Amino acid sequence: MALRNVNKHLWNSSGQDVNPDLDIERKTASFSVERLTNILDGGAENTQIRRAVDAVLQNDPEFNREKQYFQSQNERYEGAVRRSVYLSKKMEEMGWAEDGLERKYCFRALGDDLAFTVHKVFIKSILGLGTDEQISKWIPLAKKHHIAGTYAQTELGHGTYLRGLETMATFDVTTQEFILNTPKISAMKWWPGDLGRTATHAVVFAQLYLKGKCYGMHPFMVQIRSLRDHSPAPGVTVGDIGPKMNFEQTDNGYLLLKNVRIPKENMLARFSQVLSDGQYIKRGSEKINYLTMIMVRVDIIHDEVVNTLMKACTIAVRYSVVRRQSELKPGDPEPKILDYQTQQQKLLPQLATAYAFHFVCDYLQEIFNRGYAETKEGKFDLLPELHALASGIKVITTDYSSAGVEVCRRACGGHGYSLLSGLPSLYTKLVASCTYEGENTVLLLQTARFLVKCLGIAKSGQPIPSSAAYLSSTVSEKCQAQEKRDFFNPDVYTEAYKQRAFRKVENAAIKLQTLIQSGTAQHEAWNLCSVQLAQAAMAHSHYIVVQNFVKALEKFEEEFHIQRILKHLCDLFALHGIFSNMGDFLQAGHLSGKQSDMVTESYLGLLAVIRPDAVPLVDAFDYSDANLNSAIGSYDGRAYERLFEWAKKSPTNNQDNKAFEKYLKPLFQNALSKL
Amino acid sequence: MALRNVNKHLWNSSGQDVNPDLDIERKTASFSVERLTNILDGGAENTQIRRAVDAVLQNDPEFNREKQYFQSQNERYEGAVRRSVYLSKKMEEMGWAEDGLERKYCFRALGDDLAFTVHKVFIKSILGLGTDEQISKWIPLAKKHHIAGTYAQTELGHGTYLRGLETMATFDVTTQEFILNTPKISAMKWWPGDLGRTATHAVVFAQLYLKGKCYGMHPFMVQIRSLRDHSPAPGVTVGDIGPKMNFEQTDNGYLLLKNVRIPKENMLARFSQVLSDGQYIKRGSEKINYLTMIMVRVDIIHDEVVNTLMKACTIAVRYSVVRRQSELKPGDPEPKILDYQTQQQKLLPQLATAYAFHFVCDYLQEIFNRGYAETKEGKFDLLPELHALASGIKVITTDYSSAGVEVCRRACGGHGYSLLSGLPSLYTKLVASCTYEGENTVLLLQTARFLVKCLGIAKSGQPIPSSAAYLSSTVSEKCQAQEKRDFFNPDVYTEAYKQRAFRKVENAAIKLQTLIQSGTAQHEAWNLCSVQLAQAAMAHSHYIVVQNFVKALEKFEEEFHIQRILKHLCDLFALHGIFSNMGDFLQAGHLSGKQSDMVTESYLGLLAVIRPDAVPLVDAFDYSDANLNSAIGSYDGRAYERLFEWAKKSPTNNQDNKAFEKYLKPLFQNALSKL
Repeated sequence: MALRNVNKHLWNSSGQDVNPDLDIERKTASFSVERLTNILDGGAENTQIRRAVDAVLQNDPEFNREKQYFQSQNERYEGAVRRSVYLSKKMEEMGWAEDGLERKYCFRALGDDLAFTVHKVFIKSILGLGTDEQISKWIPLAKKHHIAGTYAQTELGHGTYLRGLETMATFDVTTQEFILNTPKISAMKWWPGDLGRTATHAVVFAQLYLKGKCYGMHPFMVQIRSLRDHSPAPGVTVGDIGPKMNFEQTDNGYLLLKNVRIPKENMLARFSQVLSDGQYIKRGSEKINYLTMIMVRVDIIHDEVVNTLMKACTIAVRYSVVRRQSELKPGDPEPKILDYQTQQQKLLPQLATAYAFHFVCDYLQEIFNRGYAETKEGKFDLLPELHALASGIKVITTDYSSAGVEVCRRACGGHGYSLLSGLPSLYTKLVASCTYEGENTVLLLQTARFLVKCLGIAKSGQPIPSSAAYLSSTVSEKCQAQEKRDFFNPDVYTEAYKQRAFRKVENAAIKLQTLIQSGTAQHEAWNLCSVQLAQAAMAHSHYIVVQNFVKALEKFEEEFHIQRILKHLCDLFALHGIFSNMGDFLQAGHLSGKQSDMVTESYLGLLAVIRPDAVPLVDAFDYSDANLNSAIGSYDGRAYERLFEWAKKSPTNNQDNKAFEKYLKPLFQNALSKL
Repeated sequence: MALRNVNKHLWNSSGQDVNPDLDIERKTASFSVERLTNILDGGAENTQIRRAVDAVLQNDPEFNREKQYFQSQNERYEGAVRRSVYLSKKMEEMGWAEDGLERKYCFRALGDDLAFTVHKVFIKSILGLGTDEQISKWIPLAKKHHIAGTYAQTELGHGTYLRGLETMATFDVTTQEFILNTPKISAMKWWPGDLGRTATHAVVFAQLYLKGKCYGMHPFMVQIRSLRDHSPAPGVTVGDIGPKMNFEQTDNGYLLLKNVRIPKENMLARFSQVLSDGQYIKRGSEKINYLTMIMVRVDIIHDEVVNTLMKACTIAVRYSVVRRQSELKPGDPEPKILDYQTQQQKLLPQLATAYAFHFVCDYLQEIFNRGYAETKEGKFDLLPELHALASGIKVITTDYSSAGVEVCRRACGGHGYSLLSGLPSLYTKLVASCTYEGENTVLLLQTARFLVKCLGIAKSGQPIPSSAAYLSSTVSEKCQAQEKRDFFNPDVYTEAYKQRAFRKVENAAIKLQTLIQSGTAQHEAWNLCSVQLAQAAMAHSHYIVVQNFVKALEKFEEEFHIQRILKHLCDLFALHGIFSNMGDFLQAGHLSGKQSDMVTESYLGLLAVIRPDAVPLVDAFDYSDANLNSAIGSYDGRAYERLFEWAKKSPTNNQDNKAFEKYLKPLFQNALSKL
């Protein structure tokens, strides 16, 4: 607790007394908040580093985000560039390494308001796809921001399906150059971040043409703007794609190429090369690079997705104990809204979900580290499983977290609709993750393809990857629960999730098989099963999350209070999932109607059990007021005061009302004689 | 079809050829689009009027909304005031009546970008709560906009629960004035539209104090700003509450009153009066006014909610036939994304929902007209039922439509995230309706209270209101369906919805009763049942919607093609609801596991049946390009071209990039010697 006191200003930025309604909630924590924070950080040392970073950033006015909600797209962009350039200097000054924990914590604190996010992907792609020579040429320039890069893959008419990309790179043997072209409007590069107003260079993905033959998609380094005056390079049309639902600080852009010539050595040639005579040579395996790309997907889950859900929970839970409304007991003062079961049913499952996803990230990280080591040694067996896992977990975390943040926002009523609550921008930012880095439905169907394949292998008696091993061993069984409290047994609910996943995968596979056997073409049959296949992949991912939350509990055998509260959250996550998808569990007869009633009662009962720890559980996420940037979610619980203070700073209150002079005054004058 | 041709420019604003991928979809309509449009409009004459209004507005550059997505909160506000003042003149010029259809259609076309929305509520409240004298004093001024008003009820710390409001109005016998005060920060008026920067007057709701005794909430007319220079009146602090998730054109405001004195005659005194000596007199029944207030809720359902869902469907369906992606059949060109079952499963249920909600609005309107007539005659029996109905339908329509619009938005992938698609603002605007005009959870519990009461009356053998009559007659029965196609029988699925609603209401009531009988205090028992009560009210409302869609089909007995397509939509709405809430239908044993599989197959099969009519079905909503204001949803299907054209107009592409000069140029110079 000492640390927490030393850094007290981090939480209580106002220096004022904490709202007693919030204060009292902290006095009854059933566990050590500091210990849980350390667990979430991966150790007390990390907590210390994180707080040190937060303190440095918070004391530097350059990083102040107070005006964020009042700024235009232009101002957000300029601010992000300024802040990013300044942050680089600051990190150097502080001796924080580029790949160290401090950098990670800087992004945790400032992520929404930094530029050069795709510049990092640009660097990764050169490291992954470039030859040693190319790496030594470009990487030093890029790392020092002497050039700014972007990763130009997505096109106006083509997203997830990379083979459909239309940009062309034709090799000209006479000049030893590639000629890049955007053959039609749908082939224009569209969406890459940092492209709209920043990048000088782009790794452009284009179909490679040699002597009239297409060799598929390859990466090319293209200079798109002058380093001197930032004007577009010859043949280049480039600009910003305009306003979006969020990410206003990022200049997503478009790029049109017309006969843009680049030297032969600008094709990133680690895995394939074009000889001077136009001959094409393939070399090595791209699989290690492929894994790097999947790992990007894994990184965003914790850094972008789970973090955002945790922030939303913090804001909504704190607000729900300072907001009082209506009456429960006639004659009593208005109760805290978190005392209503309906409010608990909105917020507490989101809180449990945040913890569940935190632990599944640990699991993913672990299995990916193993996969990376194996792949480096040339063993690629794990790749399909890793891809299927990362895809499924990416979908369930982005989908549930987006929905969860929105539940939190709506649970704050009108004030959750004000940008000043911080909640709208958490949602509008997070929901983008359901689309980027692989559209969710597309990813689910890839996971489903893996699962159907596994099931086939299992039926043939061969071993299958561990995360899908249950597909070979599951026999249909009725749930053994006799009474309500049996549903607090992790074996009982884990089994239920397993049965559900198995049943969904098997049913989809049987339908697929039946259709094919009755003469439906394979692709047609796949399409006719795709809704159910996607659901099967989701059920599988849900099972993985539950399974790993249960496993994580084992680590805390020695810490009774911590284990108890985490167990409650694990139960809540699992039971809420059954409660919300009851049809799946009843349909195949795993649960009886009576058992489903027990689940409902166990689930609702848990809400009241967890309620007293709600504030300590969000405090454990340990977001400073500056991190949250919320008028209603601050540590001191002075929601109304802060809303008023912040509103007064709105530009709408600090500039002339031209509408009055121009349009209203002439009308109002007519009333002067009458009132 | 003639009309449609005459007004062709309304749809195809570009004057260019229609994208052949969209064009071909229109050639295979199984029904007359024009006829369906007429049905939705409530007759061909209405369609004609609406199109005439659209044409007038569209040809007047003052109403152009092209820049909407690029504007700041300030610009949106000023534009809305300008447009509203201009619209009043235009309406006069055109001879369009204040309460006519034309006005309604103006709002359909321009609603998002008009001011004075709460001014209308201000007028309604004077008409409803004022004496004849007060009406004749204020209404002429308000109607001509010689004063601008707002309705100041919600406070910073108090929303739905009106008894909790803290603003005080104390009668001063010596001066015959009321003294208005905001006793603390949570009592500040917060949220009223038109208050922040426009209103000169406000109907302020305050607790009336006479000789130290509180008489509850009453309405007072307060001048808050000077008509001459717009400065705040003495004792008044007023301003804008700052940026929100949407409604940037509306100046939602705050209002703090410090010893603001108003004459005695400024209390709106239709239902209660204060005599000179401070004596309080109650008169008449407020019930007719209460009904007027409920009717506001009914009006917004169609005008704000269903309309918005229809627009989102139009955009997403049209985009889904011009967007091509991935491959279905190997070797074939990329298919339209609407040919994927997963895309159909996202969009077609939303389309069916829009139609279902259209017809339930007709039903509500009808039953409210009857209720209004009865209430006017002094019969108040219908009031509780009307309140419960309006509340439940308000919740299901706002909740489902918000979710549906977001499904449409996400189904458009990356482009759905661009403001230029028009979809983000449809969502951010619509989702507010889940909170305003009665927070959804609060309303559901009010409907639930009515249902529990009805169930009690039914058990005692007495008659109950018609919309809940099933609570007295339902006996538990197994579903009779033998095969898949039996689920296209409306009797079968209507019965399933009825059984579900009945079961949910009954179970919640039994639990409530049991808790009370076992000694739990009534308020505590209610709270412990509230999640299930809310679900029961939702199931009831869902049943009402299904029931009325089925009833509406009867009207089209003579029109085979129209009836057939509406029947498909009705089936889809009903079966999608079962498919998505399967647990409810299985739990009580109404459906067997095998039947639930039939539902799934029937539902998925219907998607393919409706698919070919998807474009005609959204065309029938008959939104012009100007109405939609979407780069990807226009009538001509030129999505990519328009995205590019619009993006180029973004301010981010039309102003100096200061970030380059200030922060990037100095960095990039370091690379000049190396590249």
